[in-house]
Amino acid sequence: MRHDIPADAQTVVIVGAGFGGLEAAKALASAPVRVVVLDRQNHHCFQPLLYQVATATLSPADVAWPIRGILRRQTNAQVLMARVTGIDPQARMVHADTLSLRYDHLVLATGATHSYFGRDDWAGVAPGLKRIEDATAIRQRLLVAFERAELSDDPDTVRRLTTFVVVGGGATGVEMAGAIAEVARETLHRDFRRIDPRRSRVVLVEAGPRLLPALPEDLSAYALGSLRRMGVEVLLDTRVTGCDAHGVSLAGSERIEAGSIVWAAGVVASPAGAWLGASTDRARRLEVDEHLRVPGFDDVYAIGDTAAARDGEGRPVPGIAPAAKQMGRHVGRLIAARASGSTPPGPFRYRHHGDLATIGRRAAVVRIGRFRLKGFPGWLFWSLAHVYFLIGLRNRLMVAFTWAWNYLTLQRGARLITVEAGLGGDAAEERPTFPARPAGSAPPPPR
Amino acid sequence: MRHDIPADAQTVVIVGAGFGGLEAAKALASAPVRVVVLDRQNHHCFQPLLYQVATATLSPADVAWPIRGILRRQTNAQVLMARVTGIDPQARMVHADTLSLRYDHLVLATGATHSYFGRDDWAGVAPGLKRIEDATAIRQRLLVAFERAELSDDPDTVRRLTTFVVVGGGATGVEMAGAIAEVARETLHRDFRRIDPRRSRVVLVEAGPRLLPALPEDLSAYALGSLRRMGVEVLLDTRVTGCDAHGVSLAGSERIEAGSIVWAAGVVASPAGAWLGASTDRARRLEVDEHLRVPGFDDVYAIGDTAAARDGEGRPVPGIAPAAKQMGRHVGRLIAARASGSTPPGPFRYRHHGDLATIGRRAAVVRIGRFRLKGFPGWLFWSLAHVYFLIGLRNRLMVAFTWAWNYLTLQRGARLITVEAGLGGDAAEERPTFPARPAGSAPPPPR
Repeated sequence: MRHDIPADAQTVVIVGAGFGGLEAAKALASAPVRVVVLDRQNHHCFQPLLYQVATATLSPADVAWPIRGILRRQTNAQVLMARVTGIDPQARMVHADTLSLRYDHLVLATGATHSYFGRDDWAGVAPGLKRIEDATAIRQRLLVAFERAELSDDPDTVRRLTTFVVVGGGATGVEMAGAIAEVARETLHRDFRRIDPRRSRVVLVEAGPRLLPALPEDLSAYALGSLRRMGVEVLLDTRVTGCDAHGVSLAGSERIEAGSIVWAAGVVASPAGAWLGASTDRARRLEVDEHLRVPGFDDVYAIGDTAAARDGEGRPVPGIAPAAKQMGRHVGRLIAARASGSTPPGPFRYRHHGDLATIGRRAAVVRIGRFRLKGFPGWLFWSLAHVYFLIGLRNRLMVAFTWAWNYLTLQRGARLITVEAGLGGDAAEERPTFPARPAGSAPPPPR
Repeated sequence: MRHDIPADAQTVVIVGAGFGGLEAAKALASAPVRVVVLDRQNHHCFQPLLYQVATATLSPADVAWPIRGILRRQTNAQVLMARVTGIDPQARMVHADTLSLRYDHLVLATGATHSYFGRDDWAGVAPGLKRIEDATAIRQRLLVAFERAELSDDPDTVRRLTTFVVVGGGATGVEMAGAIAEVARETLHRDFRRIDPRRSRVVLVEAGPRLLPALPEDLSAYALGSLRRMGVEVLLDTRVTGCDAHGVSLAGSERIEAGSIVWAAGVVASPAGAWLGASTDRARRLEVDEHLRVPGFDDVYAIGDTAAARDGEGRPVPGIAPAAKQMGRHVGRLIAARASGSTPPGPFRYRHHGDLATIGRRAAVVRIGRFRLKGFPGWLFWSLAHVYFLIGLRNRLMVAFTWAWNYLTLQRGARLITVEAGLGGDAAEERPTFPARPAGSAPPPPR
C-alpha cells in the first residue's frame, strides 16, 4: 500500500471491474482514499469481442486480463475476488461470500445479464454472451455440433445439428450470426468429409421491424443485405415463443429444428438494486440522479449497465462500453473531489461518440456523427478501434496479428473443444456403423 | 475424399491423434488406403508445453490444434471424434461410443495417463498433466489459491494456501516446480497487497536419489542447484504416502500442509491392452514385436506410450515425443508398403536424439550425444527446439512472441480463472471482516 495514504483515509468500494468499475478506480488513483475493487471473477472481460471467442477466432486470454494486473501499479487500489451477496446501507457494509467490508463511498458497477422475458427455463438451451465462460460454452456447442453431424447417418439429424439460431438483432446478434456463417462456410468446409459445412443454416430472429435498431435505417438495411449475402436467413417482426433442446418455436406456429441457439435479446441489470432495496426500472436498473448517485442512500453510486442514467437531455444513456467508461470516470472524479475537499464536477453529461457493428470479416457499419463507413473500410476502422481500446500493448499486438492472419488465411486458430467425446449428446441419435456400404461401393456423397 | 482411392482400398484405423498417431496418418498420405483417425478430443495437444498452460504462461490454443485442421489437406484421411470402448479382433471391428468401424489395419496410439500406484483416490486432489483440461484445472487451482490467501486473516491458512507440492522429479515435475516458483516470485508479487507471493513455498518430492533420472548425473545436479537457487525445496529419496485436500504425507511421518498438489510421478499406459485382451507389462503397455505389431493379432500395431517397445539393443524405448513420432512413422511406412505391395522397411530402430528439460525461464539442461548446454544458452536452445516442433507457422510465431514478451517483461498473460468466487473453497476457512483494524491504525504488514 502507499505509505502516504492518510491513516483516516476514506474507503471507496467498487463492486464490479468491468468498463465502468475500472474507470472509476483509475480516476481515483491520485485521490487520498483507499480503493477496494471487488469482483466475482479474477479478470476483466472485453465484452465487445466475446463473440469472437464464441466463434473460435480469438482465445479467452486475448480478451480478458487479470484485474490485479491492470491495477497493480495503482498503489491505493486493492483487488479482492469475492461475490457480493448483500448491502447494509445503514451500517455502510458490503457483504460478500468470503468477507464483509465497510465503505465510505460505494460504487455499484455490476453490469447486466440476459433477460429471457420471464422464461428463464430457456437459459439452459439458449445461452447468452456476457462472460468468458458463456463464450467458451457456445464455442464448444458449435464445434461439437459439426463433430456430431460428421458421425451421423441420419439426414434429419445432420440438418438439425448444422442449423444455428441466433435470437436478437442488435449488434451482438448480428455479429454472432455473421461469424457463425463465416466459420461454417469458409473455415470448416474442408475439414469434414461426410458433411458439407457450407450447407449449414444460420437463422437470425428479430422481434422488431429492423436490425440494429440503435443505428439509422440505411445502416440497418446495409447490415440486412450483408447478412443475406452471407447466406444468413434473417427473420424480422418475428418473436420466439419457445426454446428447447431441439430448436425454437416462433409466433405463428413455425418451428425451426436447431442444434444450437444463441440468445442475444433482452438485457437486464444485475441484482444490485435488490441488494440496496432501492427503486429500479423495468430492466432492474437503479434509478440515479444527475450525479449518478442513488437517491435516498448516502454515498452510493451506480454506473454502467446497472444504472438507469440519463444524458443532459433526459434521454436514456445506452448500455455500451464507452458510456460505462464515461460514467465511471465521472463518479471517480466526483468522489475524489469530495475526499480532497476540492470543487466537484458538474452533473454527468453523456457524449455519444458513435456506433459500430461488424458483419463477418469484410463488412461493418460505422457511424460517427455524420461520418459513415460501410463494407471493408468499415471493418478496417472497426478493427483499429477495437484494438485501440484493448488493454495492454501485448494484447493489442496479439489480437491485431490474429486478425491479420485469419484474414489472410481464412483460418481460425482457437478451435478448441475442451470436453471429450461421449459426454452429452442425445440418446435419440442413431449409432452408425462404418462402413455402411460394403467394400467396393462408392463413398456417400456429401450431405 | 480423393476420387482415385481404389474402391477396394483397405481401411487403416488409427486410435489416438497424439504425436504417434499423427505421424502414422501422415506417413500413409500417399498410400492406396483409407485412413480413419479416431480421437476422443477434437485437438492434438503438444504435451511438452502443457506445464506452461498450467502456470499461466501460454493459452490452451497455443499448444493445441484441431486434428481436422492438421489433416485437412490429406485427402485419404478422415477424422472422427469418438471415444473407443472396445475392440473385436476376430471381426476386425473397433467399437466407440458413437460408432463402430471395421478395420483392415489397426494402430493403437492412445498414449499414457497417470498412475497413483494403486491410490487412485489421490487423483482428485493431486491432478496430473496430460491434457489441456488438466492444465487449465491446475492453473485455476494455483491462481485461486493466491486469491483465497489474499482474503484470509489466518496466517496458517495463508501459509497452507501458498504452499505448492509437486510430486515426481522427472522432466515434468522439474518444469512445473520451476515455473510455479517463477510465477509466485516474479509475476505475481506486486499484484497482491495483503500477502507476499514471494514467501510462497514450492516443494518438489522425488522418491529416487536424484532428479531427471534419464539424464546424466552432472545435469541432474545442475537442475537440483538451479531449483534450490530459485527457492524450491527439493526432497530426494522421499516417498509420498498420502495426498488429501490439505496436503501430503511423506514416508517417515512428515506432513506438508499444502493447498495445491501436482502429480508428475508414475505414468501408465491407456487401457488399449484391455480392449484387445493382449498381454501387457506392469505399466499396462502392450507387448510388441520388432515391427511394433502386437503378437497374436493380425494387423494390429501399437506405438508411443501405449507400447512396450524396445530399441535395436533390447533397451526400452523412452516415453517421449520423438520416440512416439518415430514409431508412428515406422508403422505408417510398414502399412503403406504392405498395401501397395512394395518392399517393407526393416525392423524398428529407435534413434535417441537427446534430452531437454527446462528449469524456470533462464535455465535448461540439454544433452545431445556428447553436446551439452546449461543455463541461459540451454534455455534458448530448448525454446527454439520447442518452437520448431510446434505445428503450424502461426502457432510458432505466437508462442515465440509470447516467450520473448514474457522474458522481457516478466509478465504472464494467460492468467485466467474461469470459475467465479463462491464456488469451491473450504467451509473451514474463516470469514474475515474488513477492516479488521479501526480507522486510523496502520495497515497490516504483508504476511
